[in-house]
Amino acid sequence: MTELNSGLTDSNLKDLNLQNQAQKASFDAWVANHQARMENVLDAHMPSAETLPTTLHEAMRYSVLGGGKRVRALLAYAAGEFCGAELTTIDLPAASVELIHAFSLVHDDMPCMDDDALRRGKLSTHKKYGDAIALLVGDALQSLAFQLISQNKSLENATQKLQMLHLLALASGSRGMAGGQAIDLESIGIPLTREELEQMHIHKTGALIRAAALLGAYSSAKEDEDKLKAIDHFAKAIGLVFQVVDDILDAEADTQTLGKTAGKDAQNNKSTYVTILGLSAAKQLASELHANAMAALSYYGREADLLRQLATFITHRSF
Amino acid sequence: MTELNSGLTDSNLKDLNLQNQAQKASFDAWVANHQARMENVLDAHMPSAETLPTTLHEAMRYSVLGGGKRVRALLAYAAGEFCGAELTTIDLPAASVELIHAFSLVHDDMPCMDDDALRRGKLSTHKKYGDAIALLVGDALQSLAFQLISQNKSLENATQKLQMLHLLALASGSRGMAGGQAIDLESIGIPLTREELEQMHIHKTGALIRAAALLGAYSSAKEDEDKLKAIDHFAKAIGLVFQVVDDILDAEADTQTLGKTAGKDAQNNKSTYVTILGLSAAKQLASELHANAMAALSYYGREADLLRQLATFITHRSF
Repeated sequence: MTELNSGLTDSNLKDLNLQNQAQKASFDAWVANHQARMENVLDAHMPSAETLPTTLHEAMRYSVLGGGKRVRALLAYAAGEFCGAELTTIDLPAASVELIHAFSLVHDDMPCMDDDALRRGKLSTHKKYGDAIALLVGDALQSLAFQLISQNKSLENATQKLQMLHLLALASGSRGMAGGQAIDLESIGIPLTREELEQMHIHKTGALIRAAALLGAYSSAKEDEDKLKAIDHFAKAIGLVFQVVDDILDAEADTQTLGKTAGKDAQNNKSTYVTILGLSAAKQLASELHANAMAALSYYGREADLLRQLATFITHRSF
Repeated sequence: MTELNSGLTDSNLKDLNLQNQAQKASFDAWVANHQARMENVLDAHMPSAETLPTTLHEAMRYSVLGGGKRVRALLAYAAGEFCGAELTTIDLPAASVELIHAFSLVHDDMPCMDDDALRRGKLSTHKKYGDAIALLVGDALQSLAFQLISQNKSLENATQKLQMLHLLALASGSRGMAGGQAIDLESIGIPLTREELEQMHIHKTGALIRAAALLGAYSSAKEDEDKLKAIDHFAKAIGLVFQVVDDILDAEADTQTLGKTAGKDAQNNKSTYVTILGLSAAKQLASELHANAMAALSYYGREADLLRQLATFITHRSF
């Protein structure tokens, strides 16, 4: 009966399973490959630790290199490939988003913000280099992000680069990431509604994740409005699912697995998807958002598979 | 004898004096006019205090508006006019430099840096809004600076805008302003040589002052390599004289006149031009640097008068 219903024989099922395993292995290799690529790009485009002022440059490299899943860079690469951009053209825009992300983590970990001693499995920047250097590291990483886009020689079109710079500046600023952090600050100890929480995350993490995907797409010389719209829709869902999963991981994981201090949200009396919805409904929401991301790509065939796999990778990082 | 030597009669001298007074009055009006213009540009291009998140936007406006001599904007306007740029085209590049400057002051005043309670005659941002908001204010002002250049509609040429963004990113970053602040931090309590002090200031304040003048020049559609070189040379001298005068003012002025805490350098055991050279030799150095700035413009006639007057204005701000 099963065979009749699904139209699959045992042999078909086995083939499909092998095919899935092969796809999974191929995607895992793509992830590892592009993570390594991003590490090399960042390494090559940051001043060496021997460049004066040495402490600042050492601390910048410490804060950026040798850690992180590079989710934003992976999104930029996948969206760029989907739009037909060359990898070398995506390198610097993707790196710039990673630099903005790293700068936000350095400042966010400082005593006046989240006061976190651990990041990516090692001491946070201010714990290792002191608060003053951490402040300057964040400031200088932000400048470097804009510098990299402006000097991207593998992209000739100045208008495309300007469009990227504008989007990145908006996504980082007071109506993007910094604004989300301000809302977050003001909400400590105040229970948020689900809508307020969503607004906070759309700014705090969503804006930069959206920028990552769009910067990848803007790296292509071919303008395709439909693809841009699909990526925008996709990235908005991914930005939210990313945060829902983050909240679930913070509630569930231990510090060692997480690479940063676990249980901080509850400790800081912060509203999260888990505190508002409960663990089970938060997982359900993650699944729904994942489905939304997939739906945004429904018009496309195999060329969107990388984005689909990435959505699944982000949703199922650790549960 | 005096008449013969100088070729001037008493009547000539009186005329010259009146002419100087008229020039001075005209320059003072130009300064007041362009300071007010910059205030309006900044006001119009910063999110209102009613825009969410309101505390962050209120604090950003507090940190930028209603104070400051706008020396960097004046330099951008004067250099731009010298190169034939329209005022409206210079507005946003000049504003972006003022935003970068304001962001650096907000972060520099924080407890982990200079720990200063006063700025531009009022409470520093962290004293008024707390450290976390001050951190985010600086971050968001930096993003806004890059945003303003990228969206400057009065300048059509994308390549010119990219050139500005690149220069501003370099001037703000680890090999510009942030780098100078790092060198400054590391030198507290360690006596610097005059050369080391100069290197520190070339980065900490000089890079952004140079960027201000060059961004003004880049605002012109006419490319004139000789004028650009003259402005670069001029701005480098001005950047240093600015700092020498700052050191003299810190040593001489009282807190009320200065609008920020006076005598902080000596209190923090910092090397300054006054501690290294003494007050009299520091004043002599200021005069020499002023002469260097003038020499950079020697090839030009009346069209460089505004830059000359500005050099004198900066050198003689309060002594």
